[in-house]
Amino acid sequence: MRKKIILDLDTGIDDTLALVYILGSPDAELIGITATYGNVVIEQGISNDLRLLELFGRSDIPVYQGISHPSDASSYEVPKSSEIYHAKNGTGNIEIPAKATTSVQEKSAVDFIIESARTYSKDELVYVPTGPSTNLDAAFAKAPDIVDKIKVVMMGGSLTQPGNCNMFMEANISQDPHASDRVFRTTADITMIGLDVTMQALMTKKETEALRSLGTATGKFLADMTDYYIDISEEVDPAFAGGCNLHDPLAAAVALDPSLVTCFPIDLMVETEGPGRGRTIGNPEKLLSQPKNTKVALAVDAERFTRRFFQRLKAFAATCQ
Amino acid sequence: MRKKIILDLDTGIDDTLALVYILGSPDAELIGITATYGNVVIEQGISNDLRLLELFGRSDIPVYQGISHPSDASSYEVPKSSEIYHAKNGTGNIEIPAKATTSVQEKSAVDFIIESARTYSKDELVYVPTGPSTNLDAAFAKAPDIVDKIKVVMMGGSLTQPGNCNMFMEANISQDPHASDRVFRTTADITMIGLDVTMQALMTKKETEALRSLGTATGKFLADMTDYYIDISEEVDPAFAGGCNLHDPLAAAVALDPSLVTCFPIDLMVETEGPGRGRTIGNPEKLLSQPKNTKVALAVDAERFTRRFFQRLKAFAATCQ
Repeated sequence: MRKKIILDLDTGIDDTLALVYILGSPDAELIGITATYGNVVIEQGISNDLRLLELFGRSDIPVYQGISHPSDASSYEVPKSSEIYHAKNGTGNIEIPAKATTSVQEKSAVDFIIESARTYSKDELVYVPTGPSTNLDAAFAKAPDIVDKIKVVMMGGSLTQPGNCNMFMEANISQDPHASDRVFRTTADITMIGLDVTMQALMTKKETEALRSLGTATGKFLADMTDYYIDISEEVDPAFAGGCNLHDPLAAAVALDPSLVTCFPIDLMVETEGPGRGRTIGNPEKLLSQPKNTKVALAVDAERFTRRFFQRLKAFAATCQ
Repeated sequence: MRKKIILDLDTGIDDTLALVYILGSPDAELIGITATYGNVVIEQGISNDLRLLELFGRSDIPVYQGISHPSDASSYEVPKSSEIYHAKNGTGNIEIPAKATTSVQEKSAVDFIIESARTYSKDELVYVPTGPSTNLDAAFAKAPDIVDKIKVVMMGGSLTQPGNCNMFMEANISQDPHASDRVFRTTADITMIGLDVTMQALMTKKETEALRSLGTATGKFLADMTDYYIDISEEVDPAFAGGCNLHDPLAAAVALDPSLVTCFPIDLMVETEGPGRGRTIGNPEKLLSQPKNTKVALAVDAERFTRRFFQRLKAFAATCQ
């Protein structure tokens, strides 16, 4: 059975790679993209989503507009620390070689999430947020009945490693710590794919070269875009010499195959103020209670994941324009 | 085979309970106590150790004087946050009902640790620090050859839960973050028994009542002392209504039976400055390297541990004066 997937994207370089992975996976059926802000402002993200779907020959997939700003703010500006990784256009200053022929849906992302959770069981559908928790938090607030009807595999947070914004805070959680805190404190079935594991999965220029040599516009685009990501990753932290992290693609892959990671069950919370703002950490008030709602991935079979990821990426890019 | 144990104690209420547990365990042979500072200043700790061994009829066990202050300071004063839990005398203002007839050894704790690590294999001996890492750090600096010859099961740190000094910092690590950081960054075989698991093991007044009803001076002393700990735990944090945490006893128990906990292998570091000072967290520089030197306990069979702990505690207290 193919798993139905909703990708909640702030598109974004690794968001784009996650999208390609899902489209190239025979065991996945992408039923919609819900747009969010984060790596880019939401208008840029939606524009990217529509053009990417066009490029990939999948303009049949609907894109829904999400909330454009954190739950405790009225607007959003991309922080320098995100912009440096994805560039202003979200795809590393590489133009997506396609024009959109479709538009964003009239239905809101929040309503689409709610309807989908009510329509499909947790065995059928996985919701994969690769940005802040704002849309999911709003969906839970509007329709509390879906809390126990939705399976979430999110990229975000860091439990056993430092953050990537500062020592405490991972970028996705940093965008809307209050929303993430509320989401973690529910009973929702959440798998957290955080820096604990995503920093263990690397893509190098050997892989981008293979994409480029496919000879398709898609292969060249993905290669150029990812090269930008590899270069900037190395520039910011020389520890990543020659590679970039596959944050969002790993979450997408775990949504299809949970066996790629080993998880630790825990009830989490997010610090919402003070120096630890944005830190994902165990909720001591629920230390003794069962069951735990969140599974935090602490180990990953990085070799199996990256092999499968590169294989599907290349196969898919070869069939596109 | 009985396991040889060195307890490195800052005695301390739960240190006392750990000592009783080891003395009451048929599978343990306590070859010495190395004294440290922490819950009390070291002079108080040594006095407590000598009197407790007298009370327990085990004044044959040698006590060695450790370093009296953190590695980056020249003196030590007990912080209010520790004193409130153990009282000035370390045993909850309850007098130990015995006088010391022995003295501290001339050999230093550091030298005793070094000699023991060189004498016994890691299968034979476990070193159990229940306070700061100062003595172990000094032993590693003086005799780097023992780093890979010693098995350490330490009470300290917190990886997936907030600290108990503040949101980041656990009390033992807080005493000497630099020493703990150096120790974690070695290749030493370390099992970390932190707040992740020790906060799951509780002792209540039902158990202290059973100790008191034994009718021995030891039973009464342990009951009165632990009642103090239970009361103050509840006063500081009403979440602990009726119980106190068994921090140090759990480390002692895991030294004898590692199957009580489920561990996560990781290379740790300790933040030594800034708001996260004293925080135990994964070392991102070693995220991709193998093998990991530290096993962090993330889950505990609390029921099995507490049952065994209370059983041995009672049996031992019944045989003492």
